[in-house]
Amino acid sequence: MDKIRVVKIGGNVIDNPEALSSFLANFANLEGNKILVHGGGKIATELSKSMGITPQMIDGRRVTSQQDLEVVTMVYAGLINKNIVAQLQAKACNAVGFTGADANAIVSDIRPTQPIDFGLVGDVKTVNGKAISGFVEQGVIPVFCAITHDGNGQLLNTNADTIASELAASLVDFYDVELIYCFEKQGVLENVEDENSVIPEINPSYYEKLKAEGKIHSGMLPKMTNCFDAIKKGVKSVKIGSPEVIRNENQLCSIITG
Amino acid sequence: MDKIRVVKIGGNVIDNPEALSSFLANFANLEGNKILVHGGGKIATELSKSMGITPQMIDGRRVTSQQDLEVVTMVYAGLINKNIVAQLQAKACNAVGFTGADANAIVSDIRPTQPIDFGLVGDVKTVNGKAISGFVEQGVIPVFCAITHDGNGQLLNTNADTIASELAASLVDFYDVELIYCFEKQGVLENVEDENSVIPEINPSYYEKLKAEGKIHSGMLPKMTNCFDAIKKGVKSVKIGSPEVIRNENQLCSIITG
Repeated sequence: MDKIRVVKIGGNVIDNPEALSSFLANFANLEGNKILVHGGGKIATELSKSMGITPQMIDGRRVTSQQDLEVVTMVYAGLINKNIVAQLQAKACNAVGFTGADANAIVSDIRPTQPIDFGLVGDVKTVNGKAISGFVEQGVIPVFCAITHDGNGQLLNTNADTIASELAASLVDFYDVELIYCFEKQGVLENVEDENSVIPEINPSYYEKLKAEGKIHSGMLPKMTNCFDAIKKGVKSVKIGSPEVIRNENQLCSIITG
Repeated sequence: MDKIRVVKIGGNVIDNPEALSSFLANFANLEGNKILVHGGGKIATELSKSMGITPQMIDGRRVTSQQDLEVVTMVYAGLINKNIVAQLQAKACNAVGFTGADANAIVSDIRPTQPIDFGLVGDVKTVNGKAISGFVEQGVIPVFCAITHDGNGQLLNTNADTIASELAASLVDFYDVELIYCFEKQGVLENVEDENSVIPEINPSYYEKLKAEGKIHSGMLPKMTNCFDAIKKGVKSVKIGSPEVIRNENQLCSIITG
């Protein structure tokens, strides 16, 4: 089978125009099939503030009101996504921007209101891997933002890490899939204070040990769950590291294994 | 050759949720190949105001500063486009949202700064009809907003009527193309005060006569130029009328002929 890479970038790249430009040059140079998934960064919060909206957070996660959904739809699917697409096109990379609504690519259920009502947030239900691979076969480089829909006309704010994991899993019947999470560190750190403590490989039993020891916690937990979910569903390789990972095959990073 | 319809809607539909929903139901029901092009309506101006930006107008046309471009990219490509896509998907219409940057579909030149500097406004240079027809053949219904790019990473605010005309013209080698402009009137009026004075057919010589008599003026002039440009480039049929035109083949409207 052909190989495809699903690469996810977050706020540390999106919020820094130079880092973004440099990342996109490296992404454009990546040979073979590829898909980009991007988060939102701070721009949505800044726009909300300039409109006089105060984002409501519960447990560090954004509650998405109707007004918040409009803001993230504008920022993620409009401003960020289309600027990325235009920059990739300038580098001869045939990007097309997608939300989950486009081509009915990703359908979500609105998250249950118990125990916490997060508002217009979606949990991914189905990914149309066949449609997405159809675009890829046509020479398209899909660029996904973190918006999905419920299939009944409602857009939903959706976690970008989960989108990347579910997208990767949806393609295993068509490709050997590699999932790469780029974030602000070189990999999963054994000691969060020590940038040099990158753990080169994490399998499920070692992960349980790291959790029990309190070495992996808070924001890393859902990211790790997304990694193991992808592996369980047949994704061949999952890496967590800095954006450099896509430029240099030998770049230090954490490899997640089954 | 197969037929395709390029349908353009403007602010009168976009700004009214009920009118939009009703239009989209009719558009979803249209049989055969189709493309939707939408303008922006008042939402961009309202967002600008809420952000404390005052849009600058010259001769009734918006000057697009960097900040204005960000607003229209958010509103046209994000909020409006993705809500239309989600609503069409809910009606089993396989919509995918596009700017001109996506799939390098529409490349524009930034408008010359003389005699008037309109800022980040694009004049359409090339439309990739082959790529667009490729999506259509794949079963996709493209939904275009009024943003293009210069091919060097710069997004550009672009007139939606012109996009519709140029898109239609780009497809004449692949389809029999019908271009339909939906707006707030039943058609081109001989007397702008009289809604019943719709002119059923306008050819170039009659158009010259109507202009000379001052019956067609201001905002209708560029729209008519877009219609005749499309005809000259091989578009088979051009209609101007109310959104009802797409529901009822016999709906009164103005037909523009070569």
